[in-house]
Amino acid sequence: MDVFEGAKLFVKDCWYVAAWGHEIVEKSLYAISIANEPIVIYRKGNGELVALRDQCCHRLAPLSRGQLEGDHLRCMYHGLKFASDGRCVEIPGEKKIPDQFRVHSYPVVEMHSWVWIWIGDPATSKSHLIPPAIGLEDPQWSLKAGSMDYAANYLLINDNLLDLSHVAYVHHKGLRGDGELQFPVRISKLERGLNIQRWRLDQDSAKYIPGSVGGVHDEFLCYDFLMPGIFLMYSGLFERGTAVRCDFGKPDEKFEPVHAQLSSQAVTGLTDGSSRYFFSVGARRKEHDQHPGLVELLWNLTCRFFAEDKEMIEAQQKSILANPSGQMNSIASDRGPAMMRQIMDKYMNV
Amino acid sequence: MDVFEGAKLFVKDCWYVAAWGHEIVEKSLYAISIANEPIVIYRKGNGELVALRDQCCHRLAPLSRGQLEGDHLRCMYHGLKFASDGRCVEIPGEKKIPDQFRVHSYPVVEMHSWVWIWIGDPATSKSHLIPPAIGLEDPQWSLKAGSMDYAANYLLINDNLLDLSHVAYVHHKGLRGDGELQFPVRISKLERGLNIQRWRLDQDSAKYIPGSVGGVHDEFLCYDFLMPGIFLMYSGLFERGTAVRCDFGKPDEKFEPVHAQLSSQAVTGLTDGSSRYFFSVGARRKEHDQHPGLVELLWNLTCRFFAEDKEMIEAQQKSILANPSGQMNSIASDRGPAMMRQIMDKYMNV
Amino acid sequence: MDVFEGAKLFVKDCWYVAAWGHEIVEKSLYAISIANEPIVIYRKGNGELVALRDQCCHRLAPLSRGQLEGDHLRCMYHGLKFASDGRCVEIPGEKKIPDQFRVHSYPVVEMHSWVWIWIGDPATSKSHLIPPAIGLEDPQWSLKAGSMDYAANYLLINDNLLDLSHVAYVHHKGLRGDGELQFPVRISKLERGLNIQRWRLDQDSAKYIPGSVGGVHDEFLCYDFLMPGIFLMYSGLFERGTAVRCDFGKPDEKFEPVHAQLSSQAVTGLTDGSSRYFFSVGARRKEHDQHPGLVELLWNLTCRFFAEDKEMIEAQQKSILANPSGQMNSIASDRGPAMMRQIMDKYMNV
Repeated sequence: MDVFEGAKLFVKDCWYVAAWGHEIVEKSLYAISIANEPIVIYRKGNGELVALRDQCCHRLAPLSRGQLEGDHLRCMYHGLKFASDGRCVEIPGEKKIPDQFRVHSYPVVEMHSWVWIWIGDPATSKSHLIPPAIGLEDPQWSLKAGSMDYAANYLLINDNLLDLSHVAYVHHKGLRGDGELQFPVRISKLERGLNIQRWRLDQDSAKYIPGSVGGVHDEFLCYDFLMPGIFLMYSGLFERGTAVRCDFGKPDEKFEPVHAQLSSQAVTGLTDGSSRYFFSVGARRKEHDQHPGLVELLWNLTCRFFAEDKEMIEAQQKSILANPSGQMNSIASDRGPAMMRQIMDKYMNV
Repeated sequence: MDVFEGAKLFVKDCWYVAAWGHEIVEKSLYAISIANEPIVIYRKGNGELVALRDQCCHRLAPLSRGQLEGDHLRCMYHGLKFASDGRCVEIPGEKKIPDQFRVHSYPVVEMHSWVWIWIGDPATSKSHLIPPAIGLEDPQWSLKAGSMDYAANYLLINDNLLDLSHVAYVHHKGLRGDGELQFPVRISKLERGLNIQRWRLDQDSAKYIPGSVGGVHDEFLCYDFLMPGIFLMYSGLFERGTAVRCDFGKPDEKFEPVHAQLSSQAVTGLTDGSSRYFFSVGARRKEHDQHPGLVELLWNLTCRFFAEDKEMIEAQQKSILANPSGQMNSIASDRGPAMMRQIMDKYMNV
Repeated sequence: MDVFEGAKLFVKDCWYVAAWGHEIVEKSLYAISIANEPIVIYRKGNGELVALRDQCCHRLAPLSRGQLEGDHLRCMYHGLKFASDGRCVEIPGEKKIPDQFRVHSYPVVEMHSWVWIWIGDPATSKSHLIPPAIGLEDPQWSLKAGSMDYAANYLLINDNLLDLSHVAYVHHKGLRGDGELQFPVRISKLERGLNIQRWRLDQDSAKYIPGSVGGVHDEFLCYDFLMPGIFLMYSGLFERGTAVRCDFGKPDEKFEPVHAQLSSQAVTGLTDGSSRYFFSVGARRKEHDQHPGLVELLWNLTCRFFAEDKEMIEAQQKSILANPSGQMNSIASDRGPAMMRQIMDKYMNV
């Protein structure tokens, strides 16, 4: 697929979201493919997570069809048993276990309500590289969480999330679809990602969140993209004039929004052509207490927008696969996607 | 697929039928793949047809998911707008539109009730190369039209239509299946095709068209094959002795048939392994007026025969794909298919 | 698929089971792919079997869509007719039939209730190489027969049948799943296969066959594997002490089992990734007469076990295909599979 410019499609040395923490239930096995690698995840008795290659080193049967025995995982084809570090600790009928009998054990961390897996060399994993998402139990925010699968490469989804110019077209039947381009977007580089900020002035807030906030406000949107596909988003409605008073920068704490939203999103490439999209959306707890249906409303709006994106992105993926000679051309609003791909390319080729 | 002898499967420099004219409805978009190229077709306000590559030059989304704005087509991913000649006329957020922002615009002509598209270099398109099919509004003929899709390469369908020896076997439960081979077929070359003629003497006409014509007649069949898969067919029942009186050539106007049929057929290769078959069948208006159910009867017979062909040709295609080492061997009745493939090969390799 | 070590996946010079004899019904055509070759099988008027390549030498249509005319098979695309030796005996419209108009005729033998086909050079076929399975009409045994299809390479199924260590894990909810490894398996080489024998002492027989035999016995299992995937199995329950009295060898006729089972099994590779598994199971007629539900009971148990195997083997196949870099590692209980693959490799590469 030449539109992805190069054979490598995945960054190895970073943390991938594999699941919501609550999806990994005690005494059961969770199977996922990340960056084309088959992975099985489970919890030890003390609640700690284990992530192993989901392919027995003996005859290549999936370990996710196996059986947990305490903190060990037994392959249910011929009974080899693996410790949580991937070492084989039992081969039925044999006393000696050769060194090569092990499956890869992935560094795995549960943080901010997500299960993070390091696909690259475990020796290089650094937990401080886990993006600072906001978890579901955060005292400030009331959040709702879920996920959806895409039949598309994850970079096409990253593209979509970094280029707000699509909103006016893909979501033109929605509430927020007009005037995306009249307000400039500020993009700045982060160590392993990008920061995007934008002020939109004089927004009709009733259109923004029906039934919640009325009047006209300045709207501030700010999000970080972090490799491989983490998006940490904040948006708020502020009194008119706030944008100017902040010099169109990030409003500090003395500016209290009349309404604020938070969303943590993670795009995980399962295989070259499929992805899973984990996301939460919500509002401040105090605001939600005043408007009890608010988070549900935001969730439903989000799901509607995401369904529109999914339809277009999957059509784009099919078009690319059916017509591999097609060449992309960039426009001004591709600056975000282009910067994202530069970062990805750099880390794919280390 | 070595049975197709060579990598090229499609002739570029010819007119392909993309649709029946009535299938291209005002204010809507019609998507089709022809010779593996994705194409979107629509009508301008004045009814003229437009055919563009169905892949936005920006991020490769299908334009057939776009939106018509007057005579322009807007991609509904990021809003690029294209004129009917394929030039991009608007890039949201940009004032200058670089030259390379265009999609291919295919020469398209509506003629004889069909929508014809030239896949090759537009500069070489010549509308006089459009085969002289008979359209649905012809004053002489009462015709019924439709189409069906095949999971098979179009050359296998061309083969079938050029070798009448299959009729006795594929359609052996039908009405006309016996004695196909006792009457010789005359094949002559055309500039971009073949002409096939055959007289069958002493045919039981009641078997030919049940309930319409009785008695015994000479039957004349004549059709042109024209690249890439156009078949223009005429057949008539004449008084016994006509074949001899015409020296087994084409009967001129002084011979009036007791019954005559017309069929225009177009086999369009969508992809290497799929095709769309457009066809009309019918009788003279004056004959139809006397036998009001006649065209419906012909239509039903045709659909039954085509369903039998489709079943066999799709089985043949599957057999070829599953067993690529298979070698075809030719027999005398393959003269038509062999001549067709010679012509196709010649034009595929210009 | 590097786990199969080498490009060749099938042994040519051996007999493959294509069907149960009763599946080849008079006046009808039976289509099967064996080792990727398309084959059509039918009976002549005298009941003899014919096996031809299922692809007409003319335009590659499947002959299994053809029509039997006496002992001849006519392709129903263009009417070529083939004798039971594969020679074309009629080309409609032609008097001379060129020599190359023939389809391959496979040596085919009906024996032991199975239809055996020799895929390799017919000149090298030797009917004495047909494995000595026990047919359904055997006077000593009451047998029930069937088949099931696998979405997996046949070698993975052979592996499974040659390594009893899987029983304790795949069939751990079954009746016989415990203690597989405490009793050693004896494997010896045959000219084109392997013989496997095992005694298990002090087995709870009520667990073995519910409701049939009680008490505690020595259990003897013995089976031949013969290329390409034939398994001829016998097992019996004997009085305690028999194993020792036989020096853990095969019990001769003076030892009468209290219960005995027989199973003939044939794994036929259809394509690289699909297989058909033919099998019979049953008991001695005299034992069945005493326990009228016995054979049905054995059949149901067998089907349950085979469904468990199928689920695991198909998952293993999917895991191999999705992760082609995976490397198998061998353990002691792989001796049977390893010896099988050595034999297969030797004959694949002649």
